[in-house]
Amino acid sequence: MSDTVNGGPNHPIVVAPLASRFFALPEGVHLVEPGGASPGATHPAGFLGSGVVAGLKDSGRPDIGVLAVAPAWRQQAASAAVFTTNAFAAAPIVVNRSACRLDDLLAVAVSSGNANACTGPQGLGVARAMQRACADGIGVPADQVAVGSTGIIGVQLDPAIVVAGVRAASAALKPDGGPEFNRSIMTTDRFPKTCAFTVETPDGAVRLGVCGKGAGMIAPAMATMICVVTTDAVVAAGDMQGMLGSAVDRSFNRITVDGEMSTNDMVLFLSSGASGVTLKGQSLRLFEQALQAMLLRVALMMVADGEGATKIMRVRVVGAETDSQAVSVARAIADSPLVKTAMHGGDPNWGRIISSAGAAMAGRSLPNAILELAGVRVVEGGAACPVSKEGHARMTAGVRMPEVDIWLDLGLSQASAELFFADMGHEYITINAEYHT
Amino acid sequence: MSDTVNGGPNHPIVVAPLASRFFALPEGVHLVEPGGASPGATHPAGFLGSGVVAGLKDSGRPDIGVLAVAPAWRQQAASAAVFTTNAFAAAPIVVNRSACRLDDLLAVAVSSGNANACTGPQGLGVARAMQRACADGIGVPADQVAVGSTGIIGVQLDPAIVVAGVRAASAALKPDGGPEFNRSIMTTDRFPKTCAFTVETPDGAVRLGVCGKGAGMIAPAMATMICVVTTDAVVAAGDMQGMLGSAVDRSFNRITVDGEMSTNDMVLFLSSGASGVTLKGQSLRLFEQALQAMLLRVALMMVADGEGATKIMRVRVVGAETDSQAVSVARAIADSPLVKTAMHGGDPNWGRIISSAGAAMAGRSLPNAILELAGVRVVEGGAACPVSKEGHARMTAGVRMPEVDIWLDLGLSQASAELFFADMGHEYITINAEYHT
Repeated sequence: MSDTVNGGPNHPIVVAPLASRFFALPEGVHLVEPGGASPGATHPAGFLGSGVVAGLKDSGRPDIGVLAVAPAWRQQAASAAVFTTNAFAAAPIVVNRSACRLDDLLAVAVSSGNANACTGPQGLGVARAMQRACADGIGVPADQVAVGSTGIIGVQLDPAIVVAGVRAASAALKPDGGPEFNRSIMTTDRFPKTCAFTVETPDGAVRLGVCGKGAGMIAPAMATMICVVTTDAVVAAGDMQGMLGSAVDRSFNRITVDGEMSTNDMVLFLSSGASGVTLKGQSLRLFEQALQAMLLRVALMMVADGEGATKIMRVRVVGAETDSQAVSVARAIADSPLVKTAMHGGDPNWGRIISSAGAAMAGRSLPNAILELAGVRVVEGGAACPVSKEGHARMTAGVRMPEVDIWLDLGLSQASAELFFADMGHEYITINAEYHT
Repeated sequence: MSDTVNGGPNHPIVVAPLASRFFALPEGVHLVEPGGASPGATHPAGFLGSGVVAGLKDSGRPDIGVLAVAPAWRQQAASAAVFTTNAFAAAPIVVNRSACRLDDLLAVAVSSGNANACTGPQGLGVARAMQRACADGIGVPADQVAVGSTGIIGVQLDPAIVVAGVRAASAALKPDGGPEFNRSIMTTDRFPKTCAFTVETPDGAVRLGVCGKGAGMIAPAMATMICVVTTDAVVAAGDMQGMLGSAVDRSFNRITVDGEMSTNDMVLFLSSGASGVTLKGQSLRLFEQALQAMLLRVALMMVADGEGATKIMRVRVVGAETDSQAVSVARAIADSPLVKTAMHGGDPNWGRIISSAGAAMAGRSLPNAILELAGVRVVEGGAACPVSKEGHARMTAGVRMPEVDIWLDLGLSQASAELFFADMGHEYITINAEYHT
């Protein structure tokens, strides 16, 4: 386990202040607590990490990081990836899609402070240079290195600065460099979004680690969601891709801070195979559950770190005709500024939820709809139902809690969807209107 | 002209502080200026109006109004109507759709302070009682009276109060009662949205008047857009319906304050025929242009009165493959909280516009996209282009103006769309988060 990336005494990992009832560990999956048996460890055995100050951020904070499979495990390694579908996908995303073996990645190099998005052929050149610099630095083929960037859109990156930074980060890779990598990819995040799981499978114990950044689409487009998941399990790349796609769909694709989707979003999944445990059958299913739980946990951390967010709402839409209908209604509610501001103010104004849902279902009628806010039924048979004084008090107290439930039954059929979102308050406006580029 | 509804000396009409470059009068169409030849007149000859205090609003302001065709013109009258498609359409909307001759309406009764939405069979009973009370009061069949409500969702209206109010308003109808009606339908509006046009057609001069309320979907769901257009022209109901649908599509369906669509939105178009001028051919086309201009003017007033709004943005998306694609990209930009807050802060952060547009075009690539902000080109060939110092200064000054232009060419084909939206600032949060039901 000597090349396990962990926090180390000088790199305590700040853990998100999140003990959410929206999140549960599957049986056989254990959270690796910082300060526990593996103090501060994020990434499992077989990974190296680093983070350096290249000079891209005015703050002087670390801005280029590399996370790589340790040389001993390169033959065993496998990977999977999911990228933004934004039509203005950033240069690093384009490079990853077109010039990477996404099932056999050995490293990722990330720069923060500048998104390298909307930067044309010049930006593509910089992204390719980043990729080459990292590949040369660690001695692997270029197409086994993914690249990522996060920060402002539409400004060219200085290739000399980036290449020098990636070279320095590649040279600085070390077993306990995970936290340096984790910090180097942060922009406006108030806390790093990391955690580690042990998964006790019938075939043996394996580890999962994750490092994410992002707080919605952030000031001033300094945002983006980047997430790197690591494991020491031996898993086939095809299985990894299937699991990752499904887990992303149930986590990052089910949260919204402000309804924005960045040009730079990406999720990578890297395995070193260093545990020597090959997953199959029941073990693979448990591992997949653990991965889903992990991504949901990171997604909830992102909502909790949403700009100006003071609480997390879970909206569950059931009784829909199709999954996509359920998602679109849930999203209409979650993205409604009126719902978000009511929640921020602790106001049980459910009429705004009904109005948003009704707009998403335009042209239909919902005579069997049921709505419950904070566990209190307020609409039945498509109309307001009597709410007792006690019920109203419970609902009012409920919407003032840090986690609020909204449950809407469309009364049409059996499909459903679940989505998590942040409230919207003055701090969102302050961050986004008062920061000038 | 004795039964023309006009302001009269004691009812000066407050005119919206809007001299928008986004709005132009068609040739042959003249704005009837308050204080001019027909001081304060909104509605043309052949209409009666009233507004009374029934007690639905805590403020004690007028809350029930009736606008009706004067008895002498009932034979000549015709009408058209457009309603919200919200799946939780309010009781009055349901009654209008199911129990009205929408091509031959003679009056509309509107209550404000309570939306009568999500109120089930009981709410339908109240809406029908409103309709009957007005019909009985003015002596016409019930199915020739439309009803409307605006205000809070999910609270039952007291039928006794509403019926008494509608009776009183029906009894109070008078030729100069237009402003009373106009004021009785307001909720959080900072100013009434009214204006009057004279249309000089080859067949003779006719008048158009309009009275609207709404400032987006407003605190606390006290919103809704209600608009009544009146004319003294002789027009066939079928022509009116066609013109109204098309004009609504180019005005109210092309604005957004906060992306919300209410349960109670409605637009009515009533003609008294009191001018004796029958419109056909070229005259009808000019009249339609005037109607479109009028509805756009009222729509822009609503954006200008948006909660916390300090400016109006016009986003034009061209080069799209289809109209609906252009609309969806324009709407993504207009509804983006990041774009809205940047505009509020006077920040020319065009990366947010690109990111929103790219999210709306997910899965595509836009290598020929061009973006201009406040008339300054910032993106060409899908990537940032050089902006001179002078250009940057002009753009920065431009986004601080009360009206800002965003122009995006997707570079795909020929379809286009135009949409108007408000910025978002602290006042939006204050109004919507700090008001408690």
